[in-house]
Amino acid sequence: MFEVIGERINTSRKLVQAAVAERDVDYIIDDVKKQKKAGANFIDVNAGARIGHETEDMKWLLDTIQPIAAVPLTLDSPDPTVLEMAFKMVEKTPMINSISLEKERFDAMMPFLDGKECKIIALCMDDTGMPSSSDVILGRAKSLVQELNKIGIPTASIYVDPLVQPISVDSKKGVMVLDAVRSIKAEFPDVHITGGLSNISYGLPQRKVINRTFVSLMMVAGMDSAIIDPLDKKIMATIRTADMLLNHDDFCMNYLKGVRAGSISS
Amino acid sequence: MFEVIGERINTSRKLVQAAVAERDVDYIIDDVKKQKKAGANFIDVNAGARIGHETEDMKWLLDTIQPIAAVPLTLDSPDPTVLEMAFKMVEKTPMINSISLEKERFDAMMPFLDGKECKIIALCMDDTGMPSSSDVILGRAKSLVQELNKIGIPTASIYVDPLVQPISVDSKKGVMVLDAVRSIKAEFPDVHITGGLSNISYGLPQRKVINRTFVSLMMVAGMDSAIIDPLDKKIMATIRTADMLLNHDDFCMNYLKGVRAGSISS
Repeated sequence: MFEVIGERINTSRKLVQAAVAERDVDYIIDDVKKQKKAGANFIDVNAGARIGHETEDMKWLLDTIQPIAAVPLTLDSPDPTVLEMAFKMVEKTPMINSISLEKERFDAMMPFLDGKECKIIALCMDDTGMPSSSDVILGRAKSLVQELNKIGIPTASIYVDPLVQPISVDSKKGVMVLDAVRSIKAEFPDVHITGGLSNISYGLPQRKVINRTFVSLMMVAGMDSAIIDPLDKKIMATIRTADMLLNHDDFCMNYLKGVRAGSISS
Repeated sequence: MFEVIGERINTSRKLVQAAVAERDVDYIIDDVKKQKKAGANFIDVNAGARIGHETEDMKWLLDTIQPIAAVPLTLDSPDPTVLEMAFKMVEKTPMINSISLEKERFDAMMPFLDGKECKIIALCMDDTGMPSSSDVILGRAKSLVQELNKIGIPTASIYVDPLVQPISVDSKKGVMVLDAVRSIKAEFPDVHITGGLSNISYGLPQRKVINRTFVSLMMVAGMDSAIIDPLDKKIMATIRTADMLLNHDDFCMNYLKGVRAGSISS
């Protein structure tokens, strides 16, 4: 089944930042509950936007969310110190967001990850910048999987993010990432594919229809997770429907549940 | 670019049947104009529902539509006599709907097609019934392409219909037809893939969301044509968007045209 990583608890979002600054427990709890109800499988928690406050903000967010989360959390920070603290606070095996091949991030994250039981988002990024072809994406994915395997993280715990790029800049960027996903899944059948989707539509009008159509294309190629706003009903309906069509929804149960809840409609 | 075959001019539809019975020129012209405006690349014409009247109804429909069509017509009949008459009436190279491997239809259609310049929809059906696996679909597609090639119809003029079947009956039917489309395109890169989509959602609620999600999945696999109602705005928006994402829409022109016309919206 497709796994939705709910992206809303991020202090770069204005209302969340205000709620965190004011220690508004109700706002955060309400948002997390809504995401869970809408079908989030993970709740991403990012406290990076208030410079100098990340550690205390992350701690407060986890204190607030942990008792009601019921789903695992995605600890979203580039700072191993913040992650070490956060890792100790969570009850369920967390997902870490993220490692990449950028030297500084890689060198900071590897010692943190070594020996830990967690899921990890692995960005196909290195110090030369965004990948320029599907082969480059595949090469970076291979390096990440191999390095993570070496420190004991199994392939099935790795969520490769192939990095979606805008088709408005280069019309081949959609096909490029689709090809990359197919190649990565052919090489590593157990690996997960995740990522944000909204970059695909950058610079074009009516972006949401592009984003949700794109997720269904990516799902055929092998994407089985995404970092999205689960309160976007239409993208969730597309995901549930595509999951059913791809035979990942036994007896159409999730689809029918969505229809009954009024969240999937023609 | 994806080709839309507009399915509305079919006497099995109540209002069309009434219009044909009453020789209501305005109704038919208005409907065809709407389909063209919405982006139909072919107009399917089916006069089969009024038993005993097919020849005269088809003739009247073509007399009515031909002067304003501006796009090629899809002549939709199992009767070679009707098709011979219709073929002489059309100005643009038509598409014929359809041949299959069912003995009676095959034996009737082959002499009609022999030596004609036309496009042809080739259904992956034979006298044993609906195909039971992607290999069976591929096998039937191969037979059809080979037989049609023998009488001078090039592969690029053949529109294979792999026959979409309901996932409510067997949850693997979606994956089965997607696999079949990929195999057919691998074997015959020049062949087109077409078909109706609505069978996929038979027996399930909110069918249109399933049908339009499915078309985008089929497009990734290689479907480049479908027989649909072009006045269904949402499925047309999905098709235009997926076409752009798959790099079949230079400079996003069709997408942007759709947005400006108000037919694509988030």
